[in-house]
Amino acid sequence: MTDQEYMKLAIELARSATGQTSPNPIVGAVVVKNNQIIGMGAHLKAGEPHAEVHAIRMAGEKTKGATIYVTLEPCSHHGKTPPCADLIIASGIERVVVASTDSNPLVAGRGISRLREAGLTVETGVLESEALELNEVFFHFINTGLPYVTLKSASSLDGKTATVTGESKWITGDAARHDVHKLRHQHDAILVGVNTVIADDPSLTTRLTGGGKNPIRIILDSTLRTPLDARVVRDGEAPTWLITTSKAEKGKVAEMEALGVEVVVLTESLTIPEILKSLAQRGITSLFVEGGAEVHGSFLKAGAFQQLISYMAPKLIGGKNAPSIFGGEGLVHIGDAVSLQIKDVSMVGEDIRVIATPR
Amino acid sequence: MTDQEYMKLAIELARSATGQTSPNPIVGAVVVKNNQIIGMGAHLKAGEPHAEVHAIRMAGEKTKGATIYVTLEPCSHHGKTPPCADLIIASGIERVVVASTDSNPLVAGRGISRLREAGLTVETGVLESEALELNEVFFHFINTGLPYVTLKSASSLDGKTATVTGESKWITGDAARHDVHKLRHQHDAILVGVNTVIADDPSLTTRLTGGGKNPIRIILDSTLRTPLDARVVRDGEAPTWLITTSKAEKGKVAEMEALGVEVVVLTESLTIPEILKSLAQRGITSLFVEGGAEVHGSFLKAGAFQQLISYMAPKLIGGKNAPSIFGGEGLVHIGDAVSLQIKDVSMVGEDIRVIATPR
Repeated sequence: MTDQEYMKLAIELARSATGQTSPNPIVGAVVVKNNQIIGMGAHLKAGEPHAEVHAIRMAGEKTKGATIYVTLEPCSHHGKTPPCADLIIASGIERVVVASTDSNPLVAGRGISRLREAGLTVETGVLESEALELNEVFFHFINTGLPYVTLKSASSLDGKTATVTGESKWITGDAARHDVHKLRHQHDAILVGVNTVIADDPSLTTRLTGGGKNPIRIILDSTLRTPLDARVVRDGEAPTWLITTSKAEKGKVAEMEALGVEVVVLTESLTIPEILKSLAQRGITSLFVEGGAEVHGSFLKAGAFQQLISYMAPKLIGGKNAPSIFGGEGLVHIGDAVSLQIKDVSMVGEDIRVIATPR
Repeated sequence: MTDQEYMKLAIELARSATGQTSPNPIVGAVVVKNNQIIGMGAHLKAGEPHAEVHAIRMAGEKTKGATIYVTLEPCSHHGKTPPCADLIIASGIERVVVASTDSNPLVAGRGISRLREAGLTVETGVLESEALELNEVFFHFINTGLPYVTLKSASSLDGKTATVTGESKWITGDAARHDVHKLRHQHDAILVGVNTVIADDPSLTTRLTGGGKNPIRIILDSTLRTPLDARVVRDGEAPTWLITTSKAEKGKVAEMEALGVEVVVLTESLTIPEILKSLAQRGITSLFVEGGAEVHGSFLKAGAFQQLISYMAPKLIGGKNAPSIFGGEGLVHIGDAVSLQIKDVSMVGEDIRVIATPR
């Protein structure tokens, strides 16, 4: 068995916890001695033990002289749990294989230094790019102080999200909708515009067989037009935050708050950078933006997204005035178009799914 | 070597002549004796020998007792060339393996009957679906009496063909444009609306390294607004037909005709079914529709296309009023959306290409 093979397992362990460790990264660890796996673990929830702790506990007495494979540099600082670097040293492990270093300024190479100073052999960069991709959200949040934004669209093959009369249910198929619910499960929060709430009265919850984690529901609503009887206000399925401005009527704010909705009053007009900053301050590390067109148009114009996931149904709707994915003014010159890198194109049921990131 | 393997070769031979046999189908033939290929051929041009003739000629004296693999049922009627069934019988070939029967009412099983009556062994259906796909255009034309219509679009990933100010050059990349030129080469005719001619003054020719066949250029122009100095009028690179109505000014018709342009006057308003019927009567079996939005919208509304080839650039343009692929009114109900079958999704350079057919 090679280092790569053990690290691949550690990455799989990490990946299994996608969406449940926020604001922490996902991390996996495997302890190996004499070519036998003697321990494995993953970080499962913020505040609970790190991956290394679980793996070393599982190995018990056998750790002396072992190798630990860990997808992210072990921490060296006292957070909610003691430093993993110290635990590894104390365990008698002699070799540490690390996939990616931690760009969190509290760690940033210090974990590795501490291990080396204690005489352990440390190797880095094994399956590094896979490991970095695993924690794209975490690294983005740590490095920019803003949530990682995923724009989701569902349209016909010709880019229409509804017919000219506004009919939009259901363009994409069951498999694509199931995929979207998995993405909701993996994000801290979901964001839509008030027009979507008024038009569709969505519940914005995660509906997966066997259950799923609901994201916090965030509605952009500059004048508090969200109906008091909207599902997101009444159903109590998940927290709902209304992002509004000082233009919102005070009485409506009080009514919403009395119903358990959190009303976040920003300055006079809503701008995307201001909204993202505010959400980050409230602990949102990943944001799933489901539209509609005007909201998507604002994120596009602000260049404020890290990923686009576009589902395209095998249908043609057509129509000059039928709504497109991105509303608003759009870009004026082709040269100003947002350039994307296509990460994946695949079929999800009968629909095409394109995953792309801005270049 | 199996029947399938020899037939695969015959299909490759046929495919090599794609676009150069109209209005005839593409056909390949391989003659085999004692597990040695002794002859092969393809139909290369209407009026010239059929595939079987070339293959049997190449085999010369050796055909007695041989097997011939042919992608399409041999003809049994006297056309521009004598019936291939008779030639096969005369050659002493004892076994005929056929991929697909010919739905041309002049053939339709009669070729096979004649061979069997003469005592030859005939097997059919070997790689039938591949062979049918090879001649989709031909079979469509024979069965419906109308050209096979391919709609082509080039847009950003969000379905925009230009920015809100009309900028459209160049959304897709070199590889996609090269692919389009190959498609032009393979079609009898290319069709655009007069607005495209006025806006872009395109030459609509096939520009491939090493050259290519230019399609006939067809402009939908109900009131003859095509400029007298347009490239399609002046450059003499390929025939140009203007499809117009009785509303067209007589003087302009005469001017255009004097410049060598063919003016086809239809009834008062242009409808897609009427246009297609008229083009078929003029020998057009395959039509490549390059837009713009209004022309595409008309073909979509009429349900008059057999294939859509959509190139999507890794770019986002956005904008409520930026042009989409299909203009016009579009469909009103999601249930009326044109349902497609996705045949292929692949990367062409940096662009995504989707090939789809209406269900």
